[in-house]
Amino acid sequence: MKKRVLILGGDGFCGWPTSLYLSQQGYEVTIVDNMSRRMIDIELGCDSLTPISSIFKRIDRWKELTGKDIDFYNFDISRNYHRLLTLLKEFEPDTVVHFAEQRAAPYSMKSSYHKRYTVDNNLNGTNNLLAAIVESKLDTHVVHLGTMGVYGYQTAGLKIPEGYLKVKVETREGEKELDIMYPPSPGSIYHMTKTQDALLFYFYNKNDGLRVTDLHQGVVWGTETDETRMDETLINRFDYDGDYGTVLNRFLVQAAVGHPLTVHGTGGQTRAFIHIKDTVQCIKMAIENPPDFGSSVEIFNQATETHSVGYLAELVSQNTGAEIRYYNNPRKEATANELKVKNDKFLNLGLSPVKLKNGLMDEVMYIVDKYKYRCDMSKIPCTSCWCEDMEVDREGRSATENRTVN
Amino acid sequence: MKKRVLILGGDGFCGWPTSLYLSQQGYEVTIVDNMSRRMIDIELGCDSLTPISSIFKRIDRWKELTGKDIDFYNFDISRNYHRLLTLLKEFEPDTVVHFAEQRAAPYSMKSSYHKRYTVDNNLNGTNNLLAAIVESKLDTHVVHLGTMGVYGYQTAGLKIPEGYLKVKVETREGEKELDIMYPPSPGSIYHMTKTQDALLFYFYNKNDGLRVTDLHQGVVWGTETDETRMDETLINRFDYDGDYGTVLNRFLVQAAVGHPLTVHGTGGQTRAFIHIKDTVQCIKMAIENPPDFGSSVEIFNQATETHSVGYLAELVSQNTGAEIRYYNNPRKEATANELKVKNDKFLNLGLSPVKLKNGLMDEVMYIVDKYKYRCDMSKIPCTSCWCEDMEVDREGRSATENRTVN
Ligand SMILES: NC(=O)c1ccc[n+]([C@@H]2O[C@H](COP(=O)([O-])OP(=O)(O)OC[C@H]3O[C@@H](n4cnc5c(N)ncnc54)[C@H](O)[C@@H]3O)[C@@H](O)[C@H]2O)c1
Ligand SMILES: NC(=O)c1ccc[n+]([C@@H]2O[C@H](COP(=O)([O-])OP(=O)(O)OC[C@H]3O[C@@H](n4cnc5c(N)ncnc54)[C@H](O)[C@@H]3O)[C@@H](O)[C@H]2O)c1
Repeated sequence: MKKRVLILGGDGFCGWPTSLYLSQQGYEVTIVDNMSRRMIDIELGCDSLTPISSIFKRIDRWKELTGKDIDFYNFDISRNYHRLLTLLKEFEPDTVVHFAEQRAAPYSMKSSYHKRYTVDNNLNGTNNLLAAIVESKLDTHVVHLGTMGVYGYQTAGLKIPEGYLKVKVETREGEKELDIMYPPSPGSIYHMTKTQDALLFYFYNKNDGLRVTDLHQGVVWGTETDETRMDETLINRFDYDGDYGTVLNRFLVQAAVGHPLTVHGTGGQTRAFIHIKDTVQCIKMAIENPPDFGSSVEIFNQATETHSVGYLAELVSQNTGAEIRYYNNPRKEATANELKVKNDKFLNLGLSPVKLKNGLMDEVMYIVDKYKYRCDMSKIPCTSCWCEDMEVDREGRSATENRTVN
Repeated sequence: MKKRVLILGGDGFCGWPTSLYLSQQGYEVTIVDNMSRRMIDIELGCDSLTPISSIFKRIDRWKELTGKDIDFYNFDISRNYHRLLTLLKEFEPDTVVHFAEQRAAPYSMKSSYHKRYTVDNNLNGTNNLLAAIVESKLDTHVVHLGTMGVYGYQTAGLKIPEGYLKVKVETREGEKELDIMYPPSPGSIYHMTKTQDALLFYFYNKNDGLRVTDLHQGVVWGTETDETRMDETLINRFDYDGDYGTVLNRFLVQAAVGHPLTVHGTGGQTRAFIHIKDTVQCIKMAIENPPDFGSSVEIFNQATETHSVGYLAELVSQNTGAEIRYYNNPRKEATANELKVKNDKFLNLGLSPVKLKNGLMDEVMYIVDKYKYRCDMSKIPCTSCWCEDMEVDREGRSATENRTVN
């Protein structure tokens, strides 16, 4: 019998290509999505650079091309517990992949409303899912998308482990070793909700024996997978705006439309990255390798390389001749950080990563070039600030700290 | 000018005596409460052992007796962000004391609904408060009631510090010391929300400079303070039911009505305790000693002694002749634990604790004796279980594990 996978947030940037990949690989796929991401585009007056089709057209075209069915339900998992419970009981998924969260750090910091929306949506959504699985009495495995941003207190020379950290503490009986969840130090409301999710997983795993895999994912770049390329109707979304665009994709669009590359702060911040093609493969691997019954929350670092933002800008600039411009950093963060990430678990499972240098940037450049006519230049600056007193002008920079390089 | 204190949850067990104490001490007090606790009594078919008056009668009587005004607003802080924001802007409190959470671990584990209510109520409430203070631009100090239950991974010989733990980690440059938030390991959905609250405080403190004091409170016992005793209309609530009754108060009621003392499991679990008279004093001390601007979240352990549940049962049994009976433990927890708690901070501020042995149990016995005619015996057993497969009969015990002692 086919394995059944329920994909929460299956209309999104990671969820859609994952749904197609798993469907292609022979899973029975059902999607839940409340279209909140498309509605946020309306709120912000933005749009995907790529012309994405409605979820109905997407699913119909997939059926025409492959003969495979994907079921779709439109409801809010943070509000509609009983719809979720009924669906679980009817579909009896082997795995639920949970993408359905508000995922942009700048959006989560835009205003009080956005902070509250992010906390409410993400925490009630995750808690509803876990409570529903317990109530349904299914032994469904939960695969959740977390972020590398949950690792706090990064101290020089510490290689970020996969989720848990060995520490020594002083006791009356001398020094003892403890294995603890990596101490969090979230940098935005969005990241905070992921550290709170981790406590939900910890508790339901311990109390109810729920099997959970939490994927601490790096920044995803790229757009297309083999499946989304089969037809323009299947094309994946591509965010380039100041809230949802991730750094590398933003640089590539900026280069294509002749906008300076927007480096915030010094560019010294280092991030972990992964290509969308590797995302979908990692998720399949996580589905195929659930933790044993009775074991604690499984944590993978889902990232394949780390780079500083400044290095990425250099790279894109070298390939395209784009100018680099330094903007005031709207985030509260260290000007520079070191980041060494363990990702042995996925490598041991056979992942052969798509690296930035392997010319795959060309693929993205092709997409960007093809659709750059759809770009709205006014949406490029990042206007969301972490605090009220951080002033940015409409172009996202302050008069005093502007510096132009190259 | 009088210091202004806004008390969220000011109609509750801790909130009401705190409101009166602070009003008596010369603060200008305003209460917000949505009456959810009284409504939960209706849901559960329970009632306070003591005959509590409506909030309106309470406040009117206080005014008659002392000439002091207490303002009251009935709304839900987890739902009504803008009402809260407006009130903050109008009242401009120096301090907000935040009691307004669903606070019973057994209630939070009763069913899927109760899990979801607790997460939704507690996290959105706390986040609304913090976001509203940021939006109001006030420099209000937040005093929050947390619990000792946030301390996880208690290892033999470790003295529970006040919030933060020094640990050593291995790095490429050798061993380094880190000061981290004490690693959480919540034992119920209720306790989990408190560990998630801690992340909210951490973030808003770091990002917005909010001044927050988190009081990790032990189990509160006793009923009356000098103010609530002034008149029966001011009497405090006294919970003895299986969900909301805390262990010592439950034992005293059980002794008074001739019910065996209900020890869950072996009685080896150790808990930290504090008398309600000390609670109100500690809160005043916390208000008077806010953290400096720019410093991290201040954490106090608000507990004055630790005892095992079995020891308390012995104590009550010795004083009253009550029989002790051992019941299946509905909680998932270790059968026994050691607990050494630091509480130097409050002691250094001058707290002189009311201890269990000082005859203060008499006061509680007096209350219990006076109102035992109001006791509903059917509400004494604890019927909320941590997992579906933990069977308890209507008396809260399983056939196999019953043991009678004494
Ligand atoms: N994109 C990245 O670079 C990246 C990096 C690390 C982690 N992640 C994580 O991966 C997950 C997916 O990210 P993405 O880039 O695909 O985001 P996305 O916003 O494109 O997709 C999320 C989808 O979930 C849906 N959704 C949100 N809340 C919902 C709710 N309450 N009920 C039903 N549907 C809901 C949205 O409509 C959207 O289609 C997120 O949890 C995100 O935090 C993403
Ligand atoms: N009682 C104890 O032994 C104890 C021990 C440790 C910590 N605490 C903490 O102290 C605080 C107060 O505890 P308590 O024993 O007084 O509880 P309680 O239930 O008697 O009081 C809480 C009050 O808050 C109100 N409330 C709850 N949610 C609200 C909302 N969303 N909006 C407005 N009002 C709301 C309730 O109606 C109630 O009057 C809680 O946070 C609890 O976790 C209590």
